[in-house]
Amino acid sequence: MTTPFRTFIMAHPRLVEDVFTDAHLARLRALGDVVIHEGDVLTDEDFERHVAPADIAMGIFDMPAERLARCQNLKALVNSEGNFLPNIDYRHCFEHGIRVLSASHVFAEPVAEIGLAMAIDLGRGITEADRLMREGKEEYGFAANRDARPLMRARVGLIGFGDLARALLPLLKPFTSTIDVYDPWVPALLIEGAGCRTVALKTVLAESDFVFVLAGVTSENAGFLDKRAFESMKQGACLLLLSRAAVVNFPDMLEAAASGRIRVATDVFPVEPVAADDPVRRTPNIILSPHQAGAMESTLNAMGASITADIELIARGLPPAVCKVAQPETAMRFRSMPVSKS
Amino acid sequence: MTTPFRTFIMAHPRLVEDVFTDAHLARLRALGDVVIHEGDVLTDEDFERHVAPADIAMGIFDMPAERLARCQNLKALVNSEGNFLPNIDYRHCFEHGIRVLSASHVFAEPVAEIGLAMAIDLGRGITEADRLMREGKEEYGFAANRDARPLMRARVGLIGFGDLARALLPLLKPFTSTIDVYDPWVPALLIEGAGCRTVALKTVLAESDFVFVLAGVTSENAGFLDKRAFESMKQGACLLLLSRAAVVNFPDMLEAAASGRIRVATDVFPVEPVAADDPVRRTPNIILSPHQAGAMESTLNAMGASITADIELIARGLPPAVCKVAQPETAMRFRSMPVSKS
Amino acid sequence: MTTPFRTFIMAHPRLVEDVFTDAHLARLRALGDVVIHEGDVLTDEDFERHVAPADIAMGIFDMPAERLARCQNLKALVNSEGNFLPNIDYRHCFEHGIRVLSASHVFAEPVAEIGLAMAIDLGRGITEADRLMREGKEEYGFAANRDARPLMRARVGLIGFGDLARALLPLLKPFTSTIDVYDPWVPALLIEGAGCRTVALKTVLAESDFVFVLAGVTSENAGFLDKRAFESMKQGACLLLLSRAAVVNFPDMLEAAASGRIRVATDVFPVEPVAADDPVRRTPNIILSPHQAGAMESTLNAMGASITADIELIARGLPPAVCKVAQPETAMRFRSMPVSKS
Amino acid sequence: MTTPFRTFIMAHPRLVEDVFTDAHLARLRALGDVVIHEGDVLTDEDFERHVAPADIAMGIFDMPAERLARCQNLKALVNSEGNFLPNIDYRHCFEHGIRVLSASHVFAEPVAEIGLAMAIDLGRGITEADRLMREGKEEYGFAANRDARPLMRARVGLIGFGDLARALLPLLKPFTSTIDVYDPWVPALLIEGAGCRTVALKTVLAESDFVFVLAGVTSENAGFLDKRAFESMKQGACLLLLSRAAVVNFPDMLEAAASGRIRVATDVFPVEPVAADDPVRRTPNIILSPHQAGAMESTLNAMGASITADIELIARGLPPAVCKVAQPETAMRFRSMPVSKS
Repeated sequence: MTTPFRTFIMAHPRLVEDVFTDAHLARLRALGDVVIHEGDVLTDEDFERHVAPADIAMGIFDMPAERLARCQNLKALVNSEGNFLPNIDYRHCFEHGIRVLSASHVFAEPVAEIGLAMAIDLGRGITEADRLMREGKEEYGFAANRDARPLMRARVGLIGFGDLARALLPLLKPFTSTIDVYDPWVPALLIEGAGCRTVALKTVLAESDFVFVLAGVTSENAGFLDKRAFESMKQGACLLLLSRAAVVNFPDMLEAAASGRIRVATDVFPVEPVAADDPVRRTPNIILSPHQAGAMESTLNAMGASITADIELIARGLPPAVCKVAQPETAMRFRSMPVSKS
Repeated sequence: MTTPFRTFIMAHPRLVEDVFTDAHLARLRALGDVVIHEGDVLTDEDFERHVAPADIAMGIFDMPAERLARCQNLKALVNSEGNFLPNIDYRHCFEHGIRVLSASHVFAEPVAEIGLAMAIDLGRGITEADRLMREGKEEYGFAANRDARPLMRARVGLIGFGDLARALLPLLKPFTSTIDVYDPWVPALLIEGAGCRTVALKTVLAESDFVFVLAGVTSENAGFLDKRAFESMKQGACLLLLSRAAVVNFPDMLEAAASGRIRVATDVFPVEPVAADDPVRRTPNIILSPHQAGAMESTLNAMGASITADIELIARGLPPAVCKVAQPETAMRFRSMPVSKS
Repeated sequence: MTTPFRTFIMAHPRLVEDVFTDAHLARLRALGDVVIHEGDVLTDEDFERHVAPADIAMGIFDMPAERLARCQNLKALVNSEGNFLPNIDYRHCFEHGIRVLSASHVFAEPVAEIGLAMAIDLGRGITEADRLMREGKEEYGFAANRDARPLMRARVGLIGFGDLARALLPLLKPFTSTIDVYDPWVPALLIEGAGCRTVALKTVLAESDFVFVLAGVTSENAGFLDKRAFESMKQGACLLLLSRAAVVNFPDMLEAAASGRIRVATDVFPVEPVAADDPVRRTPNIILSPHQAGAMESTLNAMGASITADIELIARGLPPAVCKVAQPETAMRFRSMPVSKS
Repeated sequence: MTTPFRTFIMAHPRLVEDVFTDAHLARLRALGDVVIHEGDVLTDEDFERHVAPADIAMGIFDMPAERLARCQNLKALVNSEGNFLPNIDYRHCFEHGIRVLSASHVFAEPVAEIGLAMAIDLGRGITEADRLMREGKEEYGFAANRDARPLMRARVGLIGFGDLARALLPLLKPFTSTIDVYDPWVPALLIEGAGCRTVALKTVLAESDFVFVLAGVTSENAGFLDKRAFESMKQGACLLLLSRAAVVNFPDMLEAAASGRIRVATDVFPVEPVAADDPVRRTPNIILSPHQAGAMESTLNAMGASITADIELIARGLPPAVCKVAQPETAMRFRSMPVSKS
């Protein structure tokens, strides 16, 4: 007698109902048993009872080798947060064919959408013009556009060529065919296959009208965009920080904006929430966005859709095809980031 | 002996050097004589001396039949403002094969660009979030996005399907394949050929998440978007007014925004400049843009490029192919608008 | 009392039912009276009775100034054949605001479709491989592809940048971003605005892997692609003749194919039908297509749809927006071609 | 002292110089030692000397667990043929983090290119018209097109949604927005995310004007397209067999073509080379292609580029990102096919 397929869901820090629609849950239940674990604590008893026998376990809880060894049916661990975290013994998983999945790719699309608009906003002055009109200081027409910089036919540079860059590309394509990419982790073959050019970091900085910072932070690149980098940019160029605050030297970036050297939009801050008296709140030439680029209701639904689709594949003995899958070569390399990009 | 080809340029309300680059002027001079008339007045003597013998005459000045009859070489009148104005006896021109040209099509691209960004801004709250952060009132992540409405896969409606709509379409295509169009002047064949659907005005209003108002104002459609129209829209839908203030009932639109019924972005106002104490400056749920969507330095250069290309064609005995050409059926129908869309 | 709007239709050389669907005819009848004239002869009595009072007259019959002067309601003459012919006093029409329309633009799309396939066929050897297999002479895999020339990332050249080129461009875009155009009648601004490069004829010939001949024949360019032109092409380059046989020196083209210098596909021939013993039928390295690229059932339906839409616009006092409209500068320049491109 | 990175290359059934350009080999040599093994036999001595110490081993030779256990540095096995074959102990590789790579994805693009052209050819009759002209039996224009079926706006169905389908999609998009997909191995989420519709097999067959067979053959689907399937297709619909002969019942397919029920193009045959007297050579309504869709010189170069890029990543401790990577869930499921798709 075979046991039914068992899916364990601990959605924290999300709510189950934010991630999974009723239709998603019905599809999971069609595969077998589904246990939904509310709250943010998993006791040893919970583990023994619900996780140890599971085929699929979703959640952020400790999974050292000892616990993994007790999971004889486990086919996949699903990360409910977004970033791969050091809560799992990845080596054990790789050796035993246990997939570690994350649906963090769903954040790319909403971030790309708002990033495109912020780029045009910086170049054309939407947020600033609205502020000026509310203060009664606006100019009109041509006079309002002295510093305008259209995205159309601009030279665009991308720092980082992961999910976010790939979600941004189709949105940028109607605007420009000159997209330069710097990403030392990605083969030129893939960058050029996507219609972009592979260039050095200094080229992206020195020659782009718009620079999108899309790189995740690693132990190697923290703060690599600093005063020197900003000074190498074109006068009035637009910088969009959409990934992680830690990849830039934040004070240097604010100073470059304040001085009018460059224009900046940022969705991320070194500490969130930002302190009430943080001077960033009064910095000119910068669009401030409270880490809202990624997480919408529709994004979490997309997360649920992705996870459900991959669980269905795994239940049929097929490889996951939608979520990101932790890879042996990199699983331990990414810095843990308990403040998620969402 | 043939006389040289003569081009007369009176660029007002622009400056010649804003419209024509040196390269453009060199190309015009390669065709024959070029007379540049500074200032905004054309005396009868100026007319006799410079316009009467011209092959091409650019500018906004009176051209009644009597004057036109004196222009024996005239092949084209080039409008330097943007809208066809009632300063010309169009009937005479049509009967005598004199082309009346306007390069107003160049404004479509920059307006489309900023319009796309404003749509995402309304849906995702860029301008508002920046204001909230500067006021210390922001929320973060998911909490900031309770009312967020992505453009991605949204239902988009266009009111008007002229140059502006056609410039907007390629920018919208990466976001959505559901684009409904209302334009009673344009055959369904063309709308559907562009991948959109032809629908009734009430359908655009009732079913779109984003409504772009792109229609020019005519003697027939002034104020046709009023309280009734705004009330028929979805709760929280986004309205972008990018063409002319007169096509909407402006107070109704402001009220619909103020009440939270809809979100609005407008680049145009009934009277510009807006009065210092105009309540629009304090209206919530609206992005205010001081008629800056169209006129950038690059736009005026594009105008010069278009006019130069068409003059070259005409000098070779070919029809103009770049600028808009006044048509007998509609030349007298458009309302004169001395305040240009730029 | 106003008279009803009258549409006169003489569809020859087509059949009315091939061009107009029942739905099209119903739309025309909704505008007023519709007279359908069968056959290919229009007597003076027919003219007086049906054409003289018409608002719209479709057909190929003589329309000298004397007849046109008797047409007091006439707003448009619709060409039923494809090319503007010298059967009309165009000057009279231009002076009196009578539109002369042709729906020949509908042929562009089907010709572009088959032209793309022929290009890949020439480059990859579809027709030839099928012939070899039927003769038992094929090779397999890599060996069959010694001379293969993919369209993907190839350098493509277009000679002529009219309707046909514009219909071809979106089909070519997924294959290559290097499209060179030679068309002395079209401003570089438009060619470059469409994402192509403006180059000299000799550049198109010398540097393209695939050369599409899309130019109409005029009194000036007959036979301009000759032995010298073909010899300047790359060894093994592919030439697609999709417009008119008369723009090339046909014997030179056949010799260039026969010698293996270039590969050719042609949809047009100097005399059609081709003589039974014409050596073209035995020429190697050439794909022969019996002038079938344009005229399908769906094409004629598209013609009817275009004409119907424009008649509806004209009936409402609007300019035609779908069909090609004869222009004063060029109406007399195109060579008459009684053998239509269909 | 660290040993240098070692790459072992046995290119059979290709030639090393067909796969790797000098530039590729230079890049591999920049990583460390490169051993190129000519010929198609790997002796035990060869294995001990060259493969056992290698970091990367490319080739088709037996790699049972005993041999793999002797490869202490091995990071990746690179398949030089195209399909994953049962020559490797995959389980050992998965447990030990040894990547098994194949660059078979490079065949997708050339097959898609020729497949698109064959579809238009079937629908519009290019190959057939050429044959008729050579036989002196052609008709012209409209008469030649009685059975023509444009791809433009056709309903297209894809059976299989792997690399080949994904390479075909961008080529099809300018033609049609109605693309139905049947692939029971691929989540609807991915199919719909690519702008297609997920449908049942019977829907693809019954409603498509063009059916592309793109599925690989597995132990489960051999011959699943048979007489019954072909009879359910639209009269005159076009079937393109681009993946493997074994997924169809070949005699049934030929009969369906011969009877005029459907039109067929096939690049694959049950036995290759096809016998001299095989009746397929005389079957009408079918385009015969001698397994030439995939393997061009440029394809093999792309293979070399892909492999080189992934070896560079692996040498840096990063996961491969270009080639296909064997997955534990499916590695043993695909049927071995020693006759490669090239």
